[in-house]
Amino acid sequence: VTAAERPGTLGRMTATGAVRRANAEDAATVGRLLDAFNREYDWPTPGPEWLAQRFARLRGDDLVVLLAGEPACGLAVLRFRPALWSEGLECYLAELYVAPERRGEGLGRALLTAALDTARAAGSDTIDLGTSEDDVAARALYERMGFTNREGPDGPVMYVYERDLDG
Amino acid sequence: VTAAERPGTLGRMTATGAVRRANAEDAATVGRLLDAFNREYDWPTPGPEWLAQRFARLRGDDLVVLLAGEPACGLAVLRFRPALWSEGLECYLAELYVAPERRGEGLGRALLTAALDTARAAGSDTIDLGTSEDDVAARALYERMGFTNREGPDGPVMYVYERDLDG
Repeated sequence: VTAAERPGTLGRMTATGAVRRANAEDAATVGRLLDAFNREYDWPTPGPEWLAQRFARLRGDDLVVLLAGEPACGLAVLRFRPALWSEGLECYLAELYVAPERRGEGLGRALLTAALDTARAAGSDTIDLGTSEDDVAARALYERMGFTNREGPDGPVMYVYERDLDG
Repeated sequence: VTAAERPGTLGRMTATGAVRRANAEDAATVGRLLDAFNREYDWPTPGPEWLAQRFARLRGDDLVVLLAGEPACGLAVLRFRPALWSEGLECYLAELYVAPERRGEGLGRALLTAALDTARAAGSDTIDLGTSEDDVAARALYERMGFTNREGPDGPVMYVYERDLDG
């Protein structure tokens, strides 16, 4: 049984519907939500059709997408890989998005809860993510849900550093 | 040709020897350096033999280790996966370590330069890493080498958030 096939403990109900794992038939929905996410923040996007195809191709052990709402209006993207420091997996929460008109209903929290359940069920020891200083609502949610941006209790904060390689 | 097999543009000489890609025969060296890294910072470690075996098992497309010095006294650990937003790979610099007695000789910079070359040669669009606020020397090196911890020019800083899942 692979991480993608394992049932996990999803089906968690919210006021607005269950969180469920995206399957091959959800590719267009996943592409639409990812594209909307980037357009909202004026980040470049390859477009919903391209993203749908990319999801359809990568979906599996190392890429799991969760959808919230019916019709789906939020998603979480999880990436998995074998950890170097343990026998388990490490899980990276690559994206967490709820459409603007559906915020404040608890969908982000439902997605994050389902993400933790999914990561645990897949055999992950840890989950991590990157977010920016000014994403105050998301940071508050992560902190309420047990995440920390400090290295140990009262330790220094941890930064993401990144660099493009097209040069 | 896989990312692990591709020659890249290594062999960059430093005052103290070339940076080279760790192969199966280097497993004990990799285990020793990873273990020393964690012991130096009082982080838990499964021990050098366990780490050597883990490296030997995971070594390949998604895990590349670079070694610096002869005998090796520094390493960089790179993880690769297909990007969701492009056809390329994303590269994560998981570890960068130089033994304390060999710091200040440019080995960290040589490893980081080789890491960028390796990531580019493997087809990565981006490289990212997490580091803590108080790791001042490493942060200065990352910044000199073109990394930023800000989302866009003068944008907000980016944090790593993480959570253990064993509970």
